[in-house]
Amino acid sequence: MAKSNAKKDVKKDAVKNIKKTQKQSPASKNKTAHQNKKTNTGKSKNTQKKPPVKPVRIIPLGGLGEIGKNITVYEYNDSMILVDCGMSFPDEETPGIDIVIPDFAHVLANKDKIKGLFITHGHEDHIGAIPYLLKNFNIPIYATKLTLGLIESKLKEHRLADSAKLNVVKPGDIIRLGAFSVELIHVNHSIPDSVAMAIRCPAGLCVHTGDFKIDTSPIDDRVIDIARFAELGREGVLAYLADSTNAERAGYTSSERIVGESFSNLFKKAGKNRIIVATFSSNIHRIQQIIDEATNCGRKVAVSGRSMINVVNIASELGYLNVKDGVIIDIESIKKYTPEQLVIVTTGSQGEPMSALHRIAAGEHRNVEIIPGDMIIISATPIPGNEKLVGKVINELMKRGANVVYEKMYDVHVSGHACQEELKLMLSIVKPKYFIPLHGEQKHLTKHALLAQSMGIPKENVVIAQNGSVIEVAPKGIKTAEHVPAGRVLVDGLGVGDVGSIVLRDRLHLSEHGIIVIVITMDSATGEILSGPDVVSRGFVYVKESEELMSEITEMAYDIIDRCYYKNRGDWNSIKIKLRDGVSKFLYDRTRRCPMILPIIMEV
Amino acid sequence: MAKSNAKKDVKKDAVKNIKKTQKQSPASKNKTAHQNKKTNTGKSKNTQKKPPVKPVRIIPLGGLGEIGKNITVYEYNDSMILVDCGMSFPDEETPGIDIVIPDFAHVLANKDKIKGLFITHGHEDHIGAIPYLLKNFNIPIYATKLTLGLIESKLKEHRLADSAKLNVVKPGDIIRLGAFSVELIHVNHSIPDSVAMAIRCPAGLCVHTGDFKIDTSPIDDRVIDIARFAELGREGVLAYLADSTNAERAGYTSSERIVGESFSNLFKKAGKNRIIVATFSSNIHRIQQIIDEATNCGRKVAVSGRSMINVVNIASELGYLNVKDGVIIDIESIKKYTPEQLVIVTTGSQGEPMSALHRIAAGEHRNVEIIPGDMIIISATPIPGNEKLVGKVINELMKRGANVVYEKMYDVHVSGHACQEELKLMLSIVKPKYFIPLHGEQKHLTKHALLAQSMGIPKENVVIAQNGSVIEVAPKGIKTAEHVPAGRVLVDGLGVGDVGSIVLRDRLHLSEHGIIVIVITMDSATGEILSGPDVVSRGFVYVKESEELMSEITEMAYDIIDRCYYKNRGDWNSIKIKLRDGVSKFLYDRTRRCPMILPIIMEV
Repeated sequence: MAKSNAKKDVKKDAVKNIKKTQKQSPASKNKTAHQNKKTNTGKSKNTQKKPPVKPVRIIPLGGLGEIGKNITVYEYNDSMILVDCGMSFPDEETPGIDIVIPDFAHVLANKDKIKGLFITHGHEDHIGAIPYLLKNFNIPIYATKLTLGLIESKLKEHRLADSAKLNVVKPGDIIRLGAFSVELIHVNHSIPDSVAMAIRCPAGLCVHTGDFKIDTSPIDDRVIDIARFAELGREGVLAYLADSTNAERAGYTSSERIVGESFSNLFKKAGKNRIIVATFSSNIHRIQQIIDEATNCGRKVAVSGRSMINVVNIASELGYLNVKDGVIIDIESIKKYTPEQLVIVTTGSQGEPMSALHRIAAGEHRNVEIIPGDMIIISATPIPGNEKLVGKVINELMKRGANVVYEKMYDVHVSGHACQEELKLMLSIVKPKYFIPLHGEQKHLTKHALLAQSMGIPKENVVIAQNGSVIEVAPKGIKTAEHVPAGRVLVDGLGVGDVGSIVLRDRLHLSEHGIIVIVITMDSATGEILSGPDVVSRGFVYVKESEELMSEITEMAYDIIDRCYYKNRGDWNSIKIKLRDGVSKFLYDRTRRCPMILPIIMEV
Repeated sequence: MAKSNAKKDVKKDAVKNIKKTQKQSPASKNKTAHQNKKTNTGKSKNTQKKPPVKPVRIIPLGGLGEIGKNITVYEYNDSMILVDCGMSFPDEETPGIDIVIPDFAHVLANKDKIKGLFITHGHEDHIGAIPYLLKNFNIPIYATKLTLGLIESKLKEHRLADSAKLNVVKPGDIIRLGAFSVELIHVNHSIPDSVAMAIRCPAGLCVHTGDFKIDTSPIDDRVIDIARFAELGREGVLAYLADSTNAERAGYTSSERIVGESFSNLFKKAGKNRIIVATFSSNIHRIQQIIDEATNCGRKVAVSGRSMINVVNIASELGYLNVKDGVIIDIESIKKYTPEQLVIVTTGSQGEPMSALHRIAAGEHRNVEIIPGDMIIISATPIPGNEKLVGKVINELMKRGANVVYEKMYDVHVSGHACQEELKLMLSIVKPKYFIPLHGEQKHLTKHALLAQSMGIPKENVVIAQNGSVIEVAPKGIKTAEHVPAGRVLVDGLGVGDVGSIVLRDRLHLSEHGIIVIVITMDSATGEILSGPDVVSRGFVYVKESEELMSEITEMAYDIIDRCYYKNRGDWNSIKIKLRDGVSKFLYDRTRRCPMILPIIMEV
């Protein structure tokens, strides 16, 4: 099977690479940290021979002023490394777009300097743009086992898995590439195997968190490695770059474990009814808790939704899900079981229109039809912008008689991101000289910056950057030196970057007011109208009920051409502009609407 | 001035009408209630002579399964009355639409039976569709003073104010129209002068809440008239129809007064900086509190935003806002004051793209430019669907250096709707036989229904209806008898109802994928192509960067016509379908996109 071969390759590559790049084992970590300290504070002999320390250049190419498409470049002399390579989702300003990826111009212009791509964890906003980068630049990738499993699955879809240079790494590993050494540190998040990074270069030590929370009772019992962050803090951190997603929220994020307690109560309440749980496919600890509780209740678990099936397969293969034999059954076979014997785990917790839960709510799912009394648990919070979609799915499920548990009811979801008290705790432990909030819109970054200032970091040592800012950090100071290109690239179907602002503006115009096409065939010699004007509209009014208006437009077009043809003989462009402006004004006066007017003149 | 004349007319009409319709003063309320009890429970001589009691027919034409466009018909024998006549806002499925109003078909079909329209309060979702109804049917309107002031202002915009039959009523009044008598009961809400209604007819007593909350410390010191609800409950309520908007929220809604306390703290914190507060223009108590706190701090208040200016004027004229002379200044004159002397009250708390706050955030406001340090208080919660809009405005304001206070920070907003404990309290006081939850999506109605059942109302006595359901209620039972037309009518510019599902489907298609127009001029006799094919696209790809694709489409169109012309000679429709299908398939294979293909063949 292609899959297992590829996996072997990953392992082989990983071993090969780790041998090459890593000089000490996790066991010797403390010693190494000590050595590193010497190296990086410029006190060791080795460094003293080198020219004076330059600043490290940190360039976030995505993830600032937005949620998603996280990617950051670290540059020192001729060495560059990348951290994360994520995508973001389209919004109401980008209709028809499938996904949004970073502008790789700066990366591709520096191919020769770039040594590798480090990934903090396997969420789409950190790995989703990797295939698009790899199509242009086969950069070596370093990530933990589960993260790499998810990347590999993505690369297979793009037929890039075979050529990719994938390297398995683990917390405690230190990878040296060019001027940089990157140490991985275990953190908690809503997907297992998440890491932060201690990135060292002659300028000093940068700590880059990725997404994280502090969970003192995580499902895999592996608490975030606070001790290592504390050691780094004691050693001296030049710059700290941290997740701002939840910087607006006071207090602490609850432990994932409380969701399990809620499941336990709700599964009891479900009684003889079927249970359907919708959650994020990547939240493997959540899925583990659902499986555990189902097992306790003697229920089977069926999995629905393409990404859910994919992730459950990968996580099981790689050992991140512990499932007793016979607990998971095929969704096709659920008819063999009574409602009280079943739990269905599904995608669609964000109300996504093509997702399994959406299809269940619409009565369009191939295997699952709502039975009145079904208990449906939406184990997620709507991402901003998805509130109405989620609400619609809940309404539809309720109309079919389901008992829906959602949002803040019963603690069926906890966030994966650190709230204010956790962010402050980390700031107090890492004790950075400079602070750069990452991952968030302006409001999140601003809050995080204010938190840092409240912890005693001087205002001038905190930089709220933008995508493309080149932040130069050295022990002597921090400044934004320049800006490099860092826009967004829109992916629409197979097209990458062929939809730009003009096309989007047209799409928005068309969606608001529709289009009116006016076609005329003219004798180019005499100016005689041979055919037309024909007026065709789409998305404007229903023509059959507006025949009068349409014939008025036709007459008007005829008059305009009649009036201006001789004056503008042969200047088709002027005639078209007159047509457009005339019809536009007429329609605005009559209807207060502004459809797009598209005049086409055919010459014979 | 036209305005004051119209207002006088209102008052005259009101007096006239109240004299006609009202048989007792509020002072004699208790006695009347007692009389009514006798009348309506069928024990008085008068009723005993009549034929057996028929059910009252209650028909919600809007507001169920949705938030907005509230309108309910009550029918008994040959009498009908309407309660509320609201609009709702468009969503992502209705692009380009300005507002959504109820389908008045059932109302207009029963013009001769309908005696009047009663309005609970002056919010758009309860009054916004009145002009559209009045254009077809000049129904007498009954509402409290402020509500009527807002309706009148709306009717003036539509040039309907002079002919409208407006009647001022007040809590305690009882208006008799046909078989119905309607008593108004004071309730708390986020706009003053809100009322619930006790609607009596021979079938029994219905209590219809409108929007409400229980505020025991309201700004105008007028607590919801719990005593009257309790009297009605003792008398015996046949059906209770109540606001479900907050039925998902546990606990109690806080008093409006706590927002004033927050303002007090924040105004102190603002120090020497300017203060800008965005809130709903109709929340007059909120505006009063802003003015009061500004007055306390010695600041002037400038008002920005068309609807805010309008409402402040109406509320001041009618005596609902108490402002010391000289406190309110013109927005044009703010340059004369220092930041610490100013408070600006503005629209735009929902991030609406044309609102004053949005223009301020975009740097496009004529009078207000952000000064770093400005304290901006967004005294509102985003309505579901507006979260991203509000977030964007906050981000932009922060980028300009403003200090933005929003959402749950500092209690700067409270809801106007009753939460679960208030809903339960009302159910326990009103003690209805039958319960019909109003105002809400399925999830809100379902929650409210479950609350009622938890209070001891049998499940079979609770009806979750749909728009258009005809609910027949009599002491003997409740049932949904039939359905009447009750869809939505879309208003786009000056067009009312001329945008239907086909136009919307086209707009959504255009917004996702754009359009490709293929025009060909042919000799209708010989089939010779005289001009074209010309291919024009909008919203598909940027043509200058996709010339190759465009010329491939042109060639393809030529080939298709060449192949099929003789077979389908003269059958232009078949040729067009072949063109559309061929180009569609080609583009999907090449780009995985589905633009609308519009073939136009001109015959010469």
